Amino acid sequence: MDTATAPLAPELEVQRWFNTSRPLSLSALRGRVVALHAFQMLCPGCVSHGLPQAQRMHEVFAGQGLQVLGLHSVVEHHQVMGPEALTAFIHEYRLPFPIAVDRPGSDGPLPMSMRALQLRGTPSLVLIDRGGRIRLHHFGRLDDMRVGAAVARLLAEDGAAASAPGSETEQQSASGGHCSDGACALPERALRR
Amino acid sequence: MDTATAPLAPELEVQRWFNTSRPLSLSALRGRVVALHAFQMLCPGCVSHGLPQAQRMHEVFAGQGLQVLGLHSVVEHHQVMGPEALTAFIHEYRLPFPIAVDRPGSDGPLPMSMRALQLRGTPSLVLIDRGGRIRLHHFGRLDDMRVGAAVARLLAEDGAAASAPGSETEQQSASGGHCSDGACALPERALRR
Amino acid sequence: MDTATAPLAPELEVQRWFNTSRPLSLSALRGRVVALHAFQMLCPGCVSHGLPQAQRMHEVFAGQGLQVLGLHSVVEHHQVMGPEALTAFIHEYRLPFPIAVDRPGSDGPLPMSMRALQLRGTPSLVLIDRGGRIRLHHFGRLDDMRVGAAVARLLAEDGAAASAPGSETEQQSASGGHCSDGACALPERALRR
Amino acid sequence: MDTATAPLAPELEVQRWFNTSRPLSLSALRGRVVALHAFQMLCPGCVSHGLPQAQRMHEVFAGQGLQVLGLHSVVEHHQVMGPEALTAFIHEYRLPFPIAVDRPGSDGPLPMSMRALQLRGTPSLVLIDRGGRIRLHHFGRLDDMRVGAAVARLLAEDGAAASAPGSETEQQSASGGHCSDGACALPERALRR
Repeated sequence: MDTATAPLAPELEVQRWFNTSRPLSLSALRGRVVALHAFQMLCPGCVSHGLPQAQRMHEVFAGQGLQVLGLHSVVEHHQVMGPEALTAFIHEYRLPFPIAVDRPGSDGPLPMSMRALQLRGTPSLVLIDRGGRIRLHHFGRLDDMRVGAAVARLLAEDGAAASAPGSETEQQSASGGHCSDGACALPERALRR
Repeated sequence: MDTATAPLAPELEVQRWFNTSRPLSLSALRGRVVALHAFQMLCPGCVSHGLPQAQRMHEVFAGQGLQVLGLHSVVEHHQVMGPEALTAFIHEYRLPFPIAVDRPGSDGPLPMSMRALQLRGTPSLVLIDRGGRIRLHHFGRLDDMRVGAAVARLLAEDGAAASAPGSETEQQSASGGHCSDGACALPERALRR
Repeated sequence: MDTATAPLAPELEVQRWFNTSRPLSLSALRGRVVALHAFQMLCPGCVSHGLPQAQRMHEVFAGQGLQVLGLHSVVEHHQVMGPEALTAFIHEYRLPFPIAVDRPGSDGPLPMSMRALQLRGTPSLVLIDRGGRIRLHHFGRLDDMRVGAAVARLLAEDGAAASAPGSETEQQSASGGHCSDGACALPERALRR
Repeated sequence: MDTATAPLAPELEVQRWFNTSRPLSLSALRGRVVALHAFQMLCPGCVSHGLPQAQRMHEVFAGQGLQVLGLHSVVEHHQVMGPEALTAFIHEYRLPFPIAVDRPGSDGPLPMSMRALQLRGTPSLVLIDRGGRIRLHHFGRLDDMRVGAAVARLLAEDGAAASAPGSETEQQSASGGHCSDGACALPERALRR
């Protein structure tokens, strides 16, 4: 997705932050590259693949201008994945980067940032360039080599976001409204909204 | 641990069962070999290692006389690992074997079966022979080859439990009261009770 | 395969031994359980799966009465997998158990032990009980839990070989005469002999 | 290593090429980014880590301007890792990219390209920018995320090689003249030449 056509990322709608002394925002992070990892604490693919990869991104690139953010976007089992449960989860899994709790939607199960970002489920990775534009949007697994390459391309751009990072638009197919093969897809009806 | 000196397994104290139409008990399972896998849904080592191994045991040995049982023995974060949360966890992780919720203790954080079985934390694997005796008791990781061997030895015994399955008493060292290296150890004070 | 119908293992035809100060033979190993791992040094599935598993068998069971033996049964590229090449391979991969070089066949590419054992390719695992009978015969991958169980059952038998270790006769399908999916199958014509 | 100080890669000294219809050279590849993977067919770390990673690089980046080259740089067991043996190895492991056999040295065990490139052993990864300069030089394991990032940075540069890909100069420590922990280090005396 090249710069000219890449959409601006909508601002995050956050109920609560973890692992940061003050609230963050995408607008305040302009000038940095942001890796937004959307997950659910009871999503098997997030626990086995997505979150460990986000930790590796944090480890490799945090000193080079990348801000890794977790986004806890709950689409089912809301009552058992609230902030108190997430607190215990973050503690036990030793997650080191800031994590935002996606604000619950007013008229359905989908939280607000997830809907605004048009995520298809969890885990999802969204890469945002220094200019605030969405340059990669991936649902499901993406291998470390491609993730490392995509981040490096965005880090190599200056704030005016010149060149394109290639077309990273492949997405894992997932049809149902539940978790399978490691990823938790949204129900069809949610996507039609 | 040979048969002569192996202790009888205390009966499970169960608050609630999952994945079974009626309550189970160790006494009713006499004559079968039982693999009891104690876990917590927010214990990283249980999710990455213990529960997948329990599923493999179920897949390989269920047709040969082994009963795999999960035992959800919560030692911290009790308020977010209750039966409702466990219901969602079992659903998302597709756990196929019966799972007992360990009954909360009356005077401390340790649940009753965990204390009676003298478990040191989660994940723990307890193998019980056809005569109801504890023949393997392991805290932490144990590789599949050793687990497969230990189960096969017990399955090869008749109900009178003649020969010994060897001495499988090694335990992972773990001192603190939190999770590390994939296993969640009990606090020292809990072990002194 | 139960004891009554299990065939006696034919004696190995060996060109040369490695990692042993004197030649071994199956007849001299009667009374012990033998795990025979047939491999080729340039077979990818042997290097990534079979040989590491044989090393784990050696590590777990060598002190309990199991003799692990490697059998280098070359079916193609003979000129570059001779004893000199194998010497370097054994050294670099730190293989710790005795390894026999299968004796070349007089009228075709298949070596003599491989033909006598009716192996379908490499890697193959053959488990021989204390009485010298073949009780498991597997071409391709077999998981550690099943391998550990099969070995333990044979170790639990006395020399008269009473009980059966179950029916472990599944085999990986492989049709061509080359390596794929990690296993190297014999050409069809070789199997017809 | 930034462009200003990065040394020009010496031309490869090649005894024979595989997987290419005509000989290649670094000078003829100017304008492309080159990933040179030095390996030995009997080096365990090359087989388990380095070559699979080179294949992933080829798969991910071949269509984006990266040329992956294998370099078979034999430092011991020369007599069993000759071109005939390598032919069988390349066939069985299905290696898809061009592979050069490093030209034997005239006065010692080290082949000529390895010495000119000052490699410390196998596996080694050398990344060469569009201008022919060595920008990453790594002995031992390097994770996929860092490799993907380093390649992407070089691909993002134009032929004049403007910006720096960061300092990727860490190297695995290895002292002896043999293989350990998956990597095969050169003997000390070889490095002193």
